[in-house]
Amino acid sequence: MSLTESSAFEIASAASLASRRLAILSNAERNEALTTLYQGLSENKDAILAANARDVANARHGTENGSLSHSIFKRLDLSKPGKYDDMLQGILSVRDLKDPIGNVTLRTLLDDDLTLERVSCPIGVLLIIFEARPEVIANIAALSIKSGNAAILKGGKESTESFVEISRVICEALSHTAVPKSAIQLVQTRDAVSSLLAQEDLIDLVIPRGSNELVRFVKDNTKIPVLGHADGLCSAYIHHDADVDIAVKVIVDSKTDYPAACNSLETLLVHENVLRDIWPGIAEALMAKGVTLKCDEASKAALVNTLDAARRSLIVDAVDSDYDTEFLDLILAVKTIPASPAYSDVEAAITHINTHSSKHTDIIITESRNTADYFMSSINSAGVFWNASTRFADGMRYGFGTEVGISTNKIHSRGPVGLDGLTIYKYLVRGVGHGAGDYFDGGKQWKHEALPLN
Amino acid sequence: MSLTESSAFEIASAASLASRRLAILSNAERNEALTTLYQGLSENKDAILAANARDVANARHGTENGSLSHSIFKRLDLSKPGKYDDMLQGILSVRDLKDPIGNVTLRTLLDDDLTLERVSCPIGVLLIIFEARPEVIANIAALSIKSGNAAILKGGKESTESFVEISRVICEALSHTAVPKSAIQLVQTRDAVSSLLAQEDLIDLVIPRGSNELVRFVKDNTKIPVLGHADGLCSAYIHHDADVDIAVKVIVDSKTDYPAACNSLETLLVHENVLRDIWPGIAEALMAKGVTLKCDEASKAALVNTLDAARRSLIVDAVDSDYDTEFLDLILAVKTIPASPAYSDVEAAITHINTHSSKHTDIIITESRNTADYFMSSINSAGVFWNASTRFADGMRYGFGTEVGISTNKIHSRGPVGLDGLTIYKYLVRGVGHGAGDYFDGGKQWKHEALPLN
Repeated sequence: MSLTESSAFEIASAASLASRRLAILSNAERNEALTTLYQGLSENKDAILAANARDVANARHGTENGSLSHSIFKRLDLSKPGKYDDMLQGILSVRDLKDPIGNVTLRTLLDDDLTLERVSCPIGVLLIIFEARPEVIANIAALSIKSGNAAILKGGKESTESFVEISRVICEALSHTAVPKSAIQLVQTRDAVSSLLAQEDLIDLVIPRGSNELVRFVKDNTKIPVLGHADGLCSAYIHHDADVDIAVKVIVDSKTDYPAACNSLETLLVHENVLRDIWPGIAEALMAKGVTLKCDEASKAALVNTLDAARRSLIVDAVDSDYDTEFLDLILAVKTIPASPAYSDVEAAITHINTHSSKHTDIIITESRNTADYFMSSINSAGVFWNASTRFADGMRYGFGTEVGISTNKIHSRGPVGLDGLTIYKYLVRGVGHGAGDYFDGGKQWKHEALPLN
Repeated sequence: MSLTESSAFEIASAASLASRRLAILSNAERNEALTTLYQGLSENKDAILAANARDVANARHGTENGSLSHSIFKRLDLSKPGKYDDMLQGILSVRDLKDPIGNVTLRTLLDDDLTLERVSCPIGVLLIIFEARPEVIANIAALSIKSGNAAILKGGKESTESFVEISRVICEALSHTAVPKSAIQLVQTRDAVSSLLAQEDLIDLVIPRGSNELVRFVKDNTKIPVLGHADGLCSAYIHHDADVDIAVKVIVDSKTDYPAACNSLETLLVHENVLRDIWPGIAEALMAKGVTLKCDEASKAALVNTLDAARRSLIVDAVDSDYDTEFLDLILAVKTIPASPAYSDVEAAITHINTHSSKHTDIIITESRNTADYFMSSINSAGVFWNASTRFADGMRYGFGTEVGISTNKIHSRGPVGLDGLTIYKYLVRGVGHGAGDYFDGGKQWKHEALPLN
């Protein structure tokens, strides 16, 4: 199918109409649809994994001839241990979460017989664009249905086979439920993105999942609000009072647990005073896992004398751009924070991070609660952690069931975006013929009395 | 001063640095700054009103020679009864609101000694662009300081004199407080907007206050998220069971209380069955206030036989574009909703509103709670009211103290935007050396246990 502007309009119009019906379904009806979706994806696991295996085989050719990046390839494979079952479990976790719709978050008596309520409601129509990661389809479908939003999903060519098979299963499953047919539409064409991005009157939010290039393309080519992150440049700062075991554990996990992930560590800031005692142990543990260290002069000097040739080959001189690079691989940029009085050292680390990080997740290793508190309130990122791995920045790990993506936006929704990020609210006022003109000077008085929410 | 790209960068950089200091001030320090601001604006009331009178005089020439719109003129005058005192009172109301910063809205035990917190925090740097309405400067300054955000305010040429005088007072007042000097910067040049809108790395949110043209210009010329409304096309639907007194009261207030406001009524949908009994009374009350009615055939036919020539001159034939027009004047578009079985009539009204309204505020007049509930859950607007005037859509009336604007966005903040809309949150994780890799299959188990928020 070739998607012209008019068919993008038709798809978005159908989604918009479906979103109105979806918005008035009960939580029970939405949950039932999720159960049916779960069953469909469970029963068709073999067929879906077979389709995915074809995508993986195609992608392997792509990485071999250089046309596909290694990180996209790593994200494509649904057959990795636990991945498919995690995807299925994610649907049930979302289903069992509290209904995000219809919650009253403010109730005020404005005057006698005049009340104000703020009630959570769906946003409307979501457009989700992704490249690899076929499990995203199930996550997004589940989150959209639970939150009462219609979703248009546009997959990338790398996951075509998985996408077609999962689409078939989802459509078939939903046809037996109260969720309208056009609530989840799966679009699989090359030209679709630009024409869908032009439907700002019908689509309320775009969520791109994929490479930096994809996210930047989307942000540069639409007036629709975009939720997501172009970069995941996470940093860690090791303060002079860091515990060595904690530092080694957290830094190694942050860097090596899954280097292709957006929440893996890319820049390490080491306090000058621990270059001799703590840094070599961390460096050794990282190099033992194959990590290349791009070091500034001081952090390099602290290592080289004690290393054999094999290790030394893993140490290279950092250049300025390394501190602005998301490697997504077993590479880490290392910079020394000079010792200085009072909090000037912590301030220097904070300034580096607020300037260079992508506002995703940044961490500090310190034994001081005060220093941690200062760092955590000063760092302007979606996640700020103390003595814990950057890799905890994830909707499943946060207990959100699953996530629709991680946002580095400064408004609406930040960090792992779960159900809450897919809702908004409306204000309801109920009167018995009230006019506002009666409340001017000398007129009726406002009560503005908080009422119980239930 | 001529604002080049580099000085826009300097202004935004200074704001960004100030926002970091502002973010760690205590509520007491921020409140003290607001008290000082209030005192300064109280003591300088005469000088500010004198400056405003010069703006009003200039604007009067503008409206006379057609270079300035009537609605901008109406918004400019600070000397209208109660307006200045409302502005002053707004600062104290904001000061006395609950601290919006540092509130923990989620606390989860992820595992032993590993906790997750979601804590409210400032957004960072706001850019507020406005045309007339000089009282906006005080509102915005108060809301920004209370919420810990730095703000860059860019005024329009219509309010130059007021702006310069208020700026002087604000700068002088804040210099005696803990709020850093660059936290509130007032920029008064013609060329500033485009270069400020290009500072997407430093400015986090733009709030335009003014004409549709201004808002559209801003939305079309920046990658920074924009909060606001281009249009305030509010609609009312009178159902067949409406109470006549309620209908007259609410519709007249909605249309005539302040026609230049974004929350005034622009389109009236009248159920066919009340054209004879209820509609003429509403029409008469509106015409008595000088309202021109742009009617469709049926709503016109219901009136003309009983009217004298003077009244008949206030009735004109509606054209399609009237139902998409924000008149901001004593003009109302009227359309008949045909009687039909079941909820098809309500559905027709809902469809009209969801298609033509600007998602600002829409109301229903009905005696049926069920019909009202259906309408309120189906209408996709920031405010949906039952038997109450559209004019209640306002931060002061909602009890928010004051507002930074009214948003018709579908994300982040909707309707009157008070302090909540100027905050976001960050996720804090505290561990004792936790790595995420330990929680894979067969490893450690998540606790995901909700903890008390206090």
